[in-house]
Amino acid sequence: MSPRRTLHEVRVGYVDTDQAGVVHHASYFRWLEHGRVEYLRHHGLDYRRFELDEHLALPVIEVSLRYRAPARFDELLVVETWVPEVTRAKVRFDSVIRRGVDTLLTGSVWLACVAMPEGRLVSMPESVRRACGHEEA
Amino acid sequence: MSPRRTLHEVRVGYVDTDQAGVVHHASYFRWLEHGRVEYLRHHGLDYRRFELDEHLALPVIEVSLRYRAPARFDELLVVETWVPEVTRAKVRFDSVIRRGVDTLLTGSVWLACVAMPEGRLVSMPESVRRACGHEEA
Amino acid sequence: MSPRRTLHEVRVGYVDTDQAGVVHHASYFRWLEHGRVEYLRHHGLDYRRFELDEHLALPVIEVSLRYRAPARFDELLVVETWVPEVTRAKVRFDSVIRRGVDTLLTGSVWLACVAMPEGRLVSMPESVRRACGHEEA
Amino acid sequence: MSPRRTLHEVRVGYVDTDQAGVVHHASYFRWLEHGRVEYLRHHGLDYRRFELDEHLALPVIEVSLRYRAPARFDELLVVETWVPEVTRAKVRFDSVIRRGVDTLLTGSVWLACVAMPEGRLVSMPESVRRACGHEEA
Repeated sequence: MSPRRTLHEVRVGYVDTDQAGVVHHASYFRWLEHGRVEYLRHHGLDYRRFELDEHLALPVIEVSLRYRAPARFDELLVVETWVPEVTRAKVRFDSVIRRGVDTLLTGSVWLACVAMPEGRLVSMPESVRRACGHEEA
Repeated sequence: MSPRRTLHEVRVGYVDTDQAGVVHHASYFRWLEHGRVEYLRHHGLDYRRFELDEHLALPVIEVSLRYRAPARFDELLVVETWVPEVTRAKVRFDSVIRRGVDTLLTGSVWLACVAMPEGRLVSMPESVRRACGHEEA
Repeated sequence: MSPRRTLHEVRVGYVDTDQAGVVHHASYFRWLEHGRVEYLRHHGLDYRRFELDEHLALPVIEVSLRYRAPARFDELLVVETWVPEVTRAKVRFDSVIRRGVDTLLTGSVWLACVAMPEGRLVSMPESVRRACGHEEA
Repeated sequence: MSPRRTLHEVRVGYVDTDQAGVVHHASYFRWLEHGRVEYLRHHGLDYRRFELDEHLALPVIEVSLRYRAPARFDELLVVETWVPEVTRAKVRFDSVIRRGVDTLLTGSVWLACVAMPEGRLVSMPESVRRACGHEEA
């Protein structure tokens, strides 16, 4: 694992399961989001302060996930998060969710940057680039 | 049913179920909330406009619910909503959720009124009292 | 719209919003799921009965979505659903979520078919192919 | 804090917030549920194994909560959980959710015990009584 990857542990709740006896596909978005927030915190960007201080937000604009094996109630999962790419307008977070050595989910989530409260698209700020290890030259 | 009661139909989603094969207890709060919003709309108060125009919000400050029978995936439920009481500071919504003639849930949800964005408690405004049929003399 | 497309209307709840003042990206999965269940019902397959009678389930194995514009509290959205492709092992549902003429979300969700309760992958059954208009020759 | 109380820490996610900028009232049920599962684990009852081994489940049958102050995105909250009472048919979990010294929520959740999968009510088993410190004489 490169130093730019972070690991975050989560516990599956009963509320995350569905009547098939496994975790519902929508529940994973909560854990991917926690993974991104912890990735940013670990690399010096407190996302709560970022929104308050810079009047910006990073909404999800695209997701692409593959569910490879089901998770179940009470399991401890590990969310691994990294940033393979930052463009002028978007940042891409890749994630793997594992239970021990088993890979349960892989995927990418793209975020844009918008000025708040109006929601107008803006360039990805230097603070985000830096936290993600993609400073502009 | 008194004219001040409203009925709102909801469909149980797969996402609402848990591994016990029934609806998770937290899912009902979504439907109670829809019931309150539709109650207010039916009685002349558009809650979205209320927040925007009056810079107020009605957060939940107390809930008391009894789960009497389980709901299941794909069932059509009816949320009956009424307002038994409005005090200076609080409005109480009572609800029954039924599937056909079976009562699945009964309970009360109390809302306060707060000035936004700071969240300071204020008196329940006349617009809410009127919609709920509890105008002050 | 081809006859094989279905439309399903949903109302955005307060619970679906986040502190950015728009619908959280995970909330859309509920509506896409409702869209798929209604698509199948409209084409003769009651998904609840399908699980009970055939001891099969259709878990989500892949999602690919683009969020094009934000939805907001209390808006009425329309979920359009169709099935562009059924392979031996997977069925792909495509969806567009619109508010009036505005496209808010487009994407694809792939489902596999598994034998319950053990979760072993099986071929997509004829009942699903038929409902989706992709009978085998 | 008596030895029979447990503390469980949770982090507020973005998904837990709503457009009022605070945690939505339904989000707390996830954390109360985690608090109960961890209480039971700490006192020797693995709830996942309990369901599998005893073919029983503990559904929520009543909730009574007071929301005393709002929680916000990214805050670390502590869920304190204890069991003031076990009757023949019900177990009552009380909880306080705090942020530092501030009390945000107090309340009670009652669980019944049902035989699975049919859902028939049964007496609270000795394994649950023992974990909760309410063995019968």
